[in-house]
Amino acid sequence: MKELMVIYHEEPKLRTPILVEGLPGVGNVGKLAAEHLIMKLKAKKFASIYSKHFPPQVLIGNDGVIRLVSNDLYYHKTKSGSDIIILSGDYQGISQEGQYDISHEILDIFERYKGKRIYTLGGWSVGKLVNQPRVLGATTTLPLVKELKAVGVEFSKDEPAGGIVGAAGLLLGLGQLRNIEAACLMGETSGYFSDPKSAQAILEILGKLIGVKIDFTELEQHSKEIDDLTASLNDMKPPTVKPDELKYIG
Amino acid sequence: MKELMVIYHEEPKLRTPILVEGLPGVGNVGKLAAEHLIMKLKAKKFASIYSKHFPPQVLIGNDGVIRLVSNDLYYHKTKSGSDIIILSGDYQGISQEGQYDISHEILDIFERYKGKRIYTLGGWSVGKLVNQPRVLGATTTLPLVKELKAVGVEFSKDEPAGGIVGAAGLLLGLGQLRNIEAACLMGETSGYFSDPKSAQAILEILGKLIGVKIDFTELEQHSKEIDDLTASLNDMKPPTVKPDELKYIG
Amino acid sequence: MKELMVIYHEEPKLRTPILVEGLPGVGNVGKLAAEHLIMKLKAKKFASIYSKHFPPQVLIGNDGVIRLVSNDLYYHKTKSGSDIIILSGDYQGISQEGQYDISHEILDIFERYKGKRIYTLGGWSVGKLVNQPRVLGATTTLPLVKELKAVGVEFSKDEPAGGIVGAAGLLLGLGQLRNIEAACLMGETSGYFSDPKSAQAILEILGKLIGVKIDFTELEQHSKEIDDLTASLNDMKPPTVKPDELKYIG
Amino acid sequence: MKELMVIYHEEPKLRTPILVEGLPGVGNVGKLAAEHLIMKLKAKKFASIYSKHFPPQVLIGNDGVIRLVSNDLYYHKTKSGSDIIILSGDYQGISQEGQYDISHEILDIFERYKGKRIYTLGGWSVGKLVNQPRVLGATTTLPLVKELKAVGVEFSKDEPAGGIVGAAGLLLGLGQLRNIEAACLMGETSGYFSDPKSAQAILEILGKLIGVKIDFTELEQHSKEIDDLTASLNDMKPPTVKPDELKYIG
Repeated sequence: MKELMVIYHEEPKLRTPILVEGLPGVGNVGKLAAEHLIMKLKAKKFASIYSKHFPPQVLIGNDGVIRLVSNDLYYHKTKSGSDIIILSGDYQGISQEGQYDISHEILDIFERYKGKRIYTLGGWSVGKLVNQPRVLGATTTLPLVKELKAVGVEFSKDEPAGGIVGAAGLLLGLGQLRNIEAACLMGETSGYFSDPKSAQAILEILGKLIGVKIDFTELEQHSKEIDDLTASLNDMKPPTVKPDELKYIG
Repeated sequence: MKELMVIYHEEPKLRTPILVEGLPGVGNVGKLAAEHLIMKLKAKKFASIYSKHFPPQVLIGNDGVIRLVSNDLYYHKTKSGSDIIILSGDYQGISQEGQYDISHEILDIFERYKGKRIYTLGGWSVGKLVNQPRVLGATTTLPLVKELKAVGVEFSKDEPAGGIVGAAGLLLGLGQLRNIEAACLMGETSGYFSDPKSAQAILEILGKLIGVKIDFTELEQHSKEIDDLTASLNDMKPPTVKPDELKYIG
Repeated sequence: MKELMVIYHEEPKLRTPILVEGLPGVGNVGKLAAEHLIMKLKAKKFASIYSKHFPPQVLIGNDGVIRLVSNDLYYHKTKSGSDIIILSGDYQGISQEGQYDISHEILDIFERYKGKRIYTLGGWSVGKLVNQPRVLGATTTLPLVKELKAVGVEFSKDEPAGGIVGAAGLLLGLGQLRNIEAACLMGETSGYFSDPKSAQAILEILGKLIGVKIDFTELEQHSKEIDDLTASLNDMKPPTVKPDELKYIG
Repeated sequence: MKELMVIYHEEPKLRTPILVEGLPGVGNVGKLAAEHLIMKLKAKKFASIYSKHFPPQVLIGNDGVIRLVSNDLYYHKTKSGSDIIILSGDYQGISQEGQYDISHEILDIFERYKGKRIYTLGGWSVGKLVNQPRVLGATTTLPLVKELKAVGVEFSKDEPAGGIVGAAGLLLGLGQLRNIEAACLMGETSGYFSDPKSAQAILEILGKLIGVKIDFTELEQHSKEIDDLTASLNDMKPPTVKPDELKYIG
């Protein structure tokens, strides 16, 4: 089998697009952010990436129809300036070698669309509850560092120790070798659960960077639910929220 | 070495065959069902698939002659309508990447025989003893959902959570990408032992779908043995069945 | 890198050779037997197989000079009849997929030399001390079963359960697919330590099969040392043998 | 993706260069030694090796700019005789198969530069504190053993048992198959922490072998810090050194 299959549902014409990546990872921050962006921009799925480096698994829709696990690309056309491609999906590559293959494929697609810049989104675990998550950055070039600082991204000499692993790191690392400008936005998170507050923090910064105004109603509501639950747990009383309000947790 | 070797013992002419897959998995349900069907239809082995993605192992027959572990294809010619191909075997691929390779190969063979539809058989573990196992379904298309519901297959919004893994899932997922109609029948099972009752439940449904009448004498007898054993264990008395009546267990 | 490299130190002309394989495994039986045979026949190394499927490791000789871990082929020319190739080595392939690749390569070499038959040697663990190890067999054809029974090989319907894994099994399994006659001789062993008694048992049978008379002085001495040690341990007294008499143990 | 990418920052003309390898390993001895040599010789990075066999990870510089993890080659031109190439890096290959691929690539580069000899540096763990670390050797040829003994390298029949694993071993093992002269210098180390004293011991020998005088101020200072810390721990009193003096530890 080919390592990877890319199936195009549509081949949109895009103007020097910006790629935003958010896949499962620490605190699910990147994926939460990417999916919120897809929903709010009504971005349209145009390509699916299937790979033997994803688990051999199908998911079952509510209608009983399956789909093979994948990574998916969505596009959103802007009035002026760069169009936006958003990458999200069910899994990252299960092997370390596979993660390299998949990131290379994504960069190939990005270059075919004459993409301009990549933003990868992720969480950065601090191991304790965070009230006001900071957004840390890392980039492929020094001018980009300056640009990110101007919109509130922090750069910290010792954080995150160990650098960035997975797609959020590889798209930068392999992108740099191809002379593609790329930056990673990392939202501070406890890492204990899926963290909508951290996702919102990076989207607030990303909105400024890509010139898009984002409504945060749903993320704010989920954050509030989690805050309430955390408060309840701290009070040693059973939580009062209903189970299906918690679908983002875990 | 080639990843896979397919050896044809015979090249039968088959009329728009239906593929039924049953390999080792949860409760051994799929494999029990496929092997019962092979026995009852006196289906004939026509091809064997060998792969470096199976364990490096030979099994020894009662006559002292070995055979390399494999997946095998059997055929049964019907009087009218579609002929039947049954796939069973010793193992599923040991690596997740290997499982993709093997499922692709099976679909290649299926397409060469101008196959019409695929049914994959599996178990779905509920973690407790089941008296009347339900049969859950998942398919590649919406019309197929309707067709399965008409013969008693249940579709449940939250079951099985996590979807379907292994060959039973991949043949649907990769089949869907090739526009092959496919459905999975999952028999409810405790998952504690090899479960002939669950295998019978899916075969009763499958028989209606492929227009074949199946005798269940052997499966019913094995189910009874297991029921007796379970009852004995529940009574906290040592089981009275003889060890070799239990060969299906474990 | 190529998966495998075969380096020929010499390209001997061999008459319809018989291949005897003995690599590390249960009780080290196969390797002990093969190395004893190499020593006693003064067989000459003519080819070395290196592979990325072996550990990334060099061994250091007493003179300080290293060698990369390998599998090695030795030959012995007989006065009449078939010449003998003996395969031994430091390791079996570390991955299951790698074991398939290596066994295929060995069969390729065997076929290039127009080999006649393969004997693989191994141990078969019974989990308790064995005084008179039986030799069990498994073959690729029914006539070979008969031939082996005639020289004292036992065939037991339920032993070894689980078949044969590793090179000793694969050379039979893949050989069968290439129509190569092959048999495995398995010496009963506790599996607790390197077992010279079991190695001798299979060599006594093998000697008859390949028409070679083998002197067993060294193996018998090692067996005696182990028997003495075992007796000492059973007496609950500290063993009286000196440490470097035990180099075969462990 | 290609398994490996080599990016040349510069293509220096080098005179029959000697390659010195020091990558992460036991006691970090090889890497400490290689990095000290790079610093002291002001060696210049001329090539970087990226591979899917390294972790999918980027590291973040103090300026916020990332780099993909890699192995790197540095050169130092000497006044007369052989120039020097030094190899160091963030990781060794994560899979055993990958380590073979990377070592082959390094040998390819070495041969393209018409390299003359390879020295690999490593630690050899004795599991207890060592005051005067010995330097053990292993080579690809007997004359090299003699040459190394002349400068104080010890060769010990039973040490290190198990040979040499990883790049320090493979460059010798695969080099030997290509007729490349190579030797490994192993510094005795407890293996409990990053060991500058052992690194210095091998550099003192290496300096004689490659005709380079090396200043050891920094390594000696780090050794002293560790000695002080060890003494403090032995006295059962809390250590008096400040945390950031210990950056080499762990």
